[in-house]
Amino acid sequence: MADDKKLTTRTEDFSAWYNEVVLRAELADYSPVRGCMVIRPNGYGIWERMQRALDDMFKETGHRNAYFPLFIPESFLRREAEHVEGFAPETAVVTHGGGKKLEEPLIVRPTSETIIYAMFAKWVQSYRDLPLLINQWANVVRWEMRTRLFLRTLEFLWQEGHTAHATHDEAEEEARMILGLYRDFMEGWMAMPVITGLKTDSERFAGALRTYACEAMMQDKKALQAGTSHNLGQNFAKVFDLKFQSESGSQEFAWNTSWGVSTRLIGGLVMTHGDDKGVRIPPLLAPTEIVVVPIYRSDEERGRVLEATTRIVSMLTDWERRDPGRLRVHLDARQGIKPGAKYYEWELRGVPVRMEIGPKDLEKNQAMLVRRDTGEKRPVSLDTIGEDASDLLTRIQADMLAAARERQDANSIRGVVDYDRFKQIMEDDGGFVYAGWCGDAACEASIKEETKATIRVLPDEEFRSAEAPTHCLRCGRPATSEATWAKAY
Amino acid sequence: MADDKKLTTRTEDFSAWYNEVVLRAELADYSPVRGCMVIRPNGYGIWERMQRALDDMFKETGHRNAYFPLFIPESFLRREAEHVEGFAPETAVVTHGGGKKLEEPLIVRPTSETIIYAMFAKWVQSYRDLPLLINQWANVVRWEMRTRLFLRTLEFLWQEGHTAHATHDEAEEEARMILGLYRDFMEGWMAMPVITGLKTDSERFAGALRTYACEAMMQDKKALQAGTSHNLGQNFAKVFDLKFQSESGSQEFAWNTSWGVSTRLIGGLVMTHGDDKGVRIPPLLAPTEIVVVPIYRSDEERGRVLEATTRIVSMLTDWERRDPGRLRVHLDARQGIKPGAKYYEWELRGVPVRMEIGPKDLEKNQAMLVRRDTGEKRPVSLDTIGEDASDLLTRIQADMLAAARERQDANSIRGVVDYDRFKQIMEDDGGFVYAGWCGDAACEASIKEETKATIRVLPDEEFRSAEAPTHCLRCGRPATSEATWAKAY
Repeated sequence: MADDKKLTTRTEDFSAWYNEVVLRAELADYSPVRGCMVIRPNGYGIWERMQRALDDMFKETGHRNAYFPLFIPESFLRREAEHVEGFAPETAVVTHGGGKKLEEPLIVRPTSETIIYAMFAKWVQSYRDLPLLINQWANVVRWEMRTRLFLRTLEFLWQEGHTAHATHDEAEEEARMILGLYRDFMEGWMAMPVITGLKTDSERFAGALRTYACEAMMQDKKALQAGTSHNLGQNFAKVFDLKFQSESGSQEFAWNTSWGVSTRLIGGLVMTHGDDKGVRIPPLLAPTEIVVVPIYRSDEERGRVLEATTRIVSMLTDWERRDPGRLRVHLDARQGIKPGAKYYEWELRGVPVRMEIGPKDLEKNQAMLVRRDTGEKRPVSLDTIGEDASDLLTRIQADMLAAARERQDANSIRGVVDYDRFKQIMEDDGGFVYAGWCGDAACEASIKEETKATIRVLPDEEFRSAEAPTHCLRCGRPATSEATWAKAY
Repeated sequence: MADDKKLTTRTEDFSAWYNEVVLRAELADYSPVRGCMVIRPNGYGIWERMQRALDDMFKETGHRNAYFPLFIPESFLRREAEHVEGFAPETAVVTHGGGKKLEEPLIVRPTSETIIYAMFAKWVQSYRDLPLLINQWANVVRWEMRTRLFLRTLEFLWQEGHTAHATHDEAEEEARMILGLYRDFMEGWMAMPVITGLKTDSERFAGALRTYACEAMMQDKKALQAGTSHNLGQNFAKVFDLKFQSESGSQEFAWNTSWGVSTRLIGGLVMTHGDDKGVRIPPLLAPTEIVVVPIYRSDEERGRVLEATTRIVSMLTDWERRDPGRLRVHLDARQGIKPGAKYYEWELRGVPVRMEIGPKDLEKNQAMLVRRDTGEKRPVSLDTIGEDASDLLTRIQADMLAAARERQDANSIRGVVDYDRFKQIMEDDGGFVYAGWCGDAACEASIKEETKATIRVLPDEEFRSAEAPTHCLRCGRPATSEATWAKAY
């Protein structure tokens, strides 16, 4: 049940607002296990829709699902030097099993490169076995010290794709293809615009050749790394002896990619679309797209209205759109709760459309449709309500993306050449700042220390400024690339 | 790739046959982590279809999915006395996290009653919050000493349903409803007949009031416990203080149920339907229902045949059945592999129907359909192939269930009153023996020690013998119930 205390507003305290919204919309809850959350049905329903959409996209591009062990022998993690350095400090370690101390401790997977490429090495013999395109839906554990619901938890749910290819270029193409697929998902399904690009060495995945990322701007103008795709080169193939016989008969190491998105996306969705009334879920990801609230003042009215709403709901539920399937409708027929209290609760939970139906509406053969995103309310004839509701949902989906994109554009600042101005921007207001970078990790580190802003990506071409920056923001030396700077989650 | 060595036959060595089939059909593989397996795409594809079917059934009966932490504080497990006694010896224990020794060790969940009912206690205040009907898809870990692919592994995937109710009778009704749902799934989807009934105290879930189970007969006549549903009474509610205010205003403890099926079902499917050529997958669970193998002897023929098969496959793929959706068709157009080798491989993997199309078939406007279950082969006109293939799949599904049921009936022995004869049956041939039991755990234990057979269930009414047995098989005292005895996995 929603509690009646007013939500903290976003301008009062964005961080407090976020926690309250997640808890009160019953997306998630704290658990008795430090740093681990419970994903409640309202949140898990969003994750299920995300999974379904992504899984379809992975399968359409030739990937198949599999499942690998939760536990990784400690020695496996140690084989790739950068990888162990990156992950060992944040692992959970099983030292006892079946009442006995283990000879070798087992790591609860923080990510599965090591165990998966050890298996790939067993399965791949010839170039004919490549490419090998595998995805896994799984839980992983990273021992974080400061945790936030969905954004950073000890355990989280994710998918991790792992592929093996015959050449560097095929692996690179896969890593880039997946980056594009993630962007399509984030924009097309989550209505969350992102920029894509290359991570610098300091933010590269431990063990990768190159890491690409999708970065989204939250309403507090901070960046959220929403998905990453890695070209792992031959680093893991070499340590796990993942070799294949090439067409010409020579033995070669395979080229790997790995890529993932997680339940963190639910936090990104809340921080992209939420408002001071609660969550706003884009229709495509909403477990319930339309909530129907019957309105009546007497038992006689109640009977009449409920009879009509039940009929309308059953018609809507059967009403098939070409894409993506049937309308998802819920009738809130609870007694003893006033319509206003129901509105409040469903707004908090973010259902995209509310349909109000009372005796007067029935007399006029209409229902009122109320948009969650804009609050706009209008009557719709019952004769065309399936098509109208479906069209409205399509419009809401598009409008939510447009609104988020507009906000992102308005807070993307280009042409900054003066470091003092940059510092001021980061101190005052934040946002994504596009500026030149000399390529020196020392400049990157100084800026991080002085402003807390980091290079989110070296943006892909379509996100770069029309005029390429000529000098490094920090040191004034010639720029080797443009970089997108922001404070980040 | 399938290896060419002939499979061990079932009569030679059922256990060796099982392992070979699972490995060579690429359903699963051993991993470098002791007792943990890798579920490969061919196996995971079956699990995905099982999940989808079960998940739909759970949702239709009002359940919603959620996700709870992997880790359970050791103290939680200890709160329910029977529960900890049952599970503590087989737990994996995390003692270190983030490089430090933990103050309280964390158990990797062997099952989630404790953590889930602790959360339920936070969420449930009033009778209005009941029933609470939750399901979780998750991995669990039980430190088994002797493991078998799918049947018994350290880590396995499962669903665990957890519900809270206001009264004993509602909980009992839920536990029984789920038992029926499991049976419908096992018979309707897996084509695996089961018997249902009550477990004796010695086989009851640790912490439950009553445990119900579905038991299936494998081809070696041993029983496989395929799913369990528990009425937990108020045992967990009392230790986790899961209380609610009743309609009359009093504080009462809730009544819980829990229930689960796991990836073990894939092993059950193999041991129910497999033959000496490999796996046989019931059409409803087959990721690929029809594999199309083009047949040609020259490049000219190849062009013609491939053009035609591609057209037929695309027509079949789009061909929509009323239920359950579209045909799942795969065209095996690999070059350099003879049709016979392809047949061998797809038979090993258990695809229900093979469609062979060669130049002569095209001349006659037909294709050959070959049933995996019976080997029967017949030509079908290309004009009606969608409907014919769909009908054939429906028939195969029904025939596989009928064949498995016939085998189960033929190996179910009733009216055994003589203990020496019982011992002989268990020594020679096995099977399900229905006999009287006095209700004394001592008799149950003696029989287990002397014959390795256990009471699988006290069968539900529809599975009981027409004439109720009058005396206990072991001690000759009056029988309090009929019991189904078998050796079991």
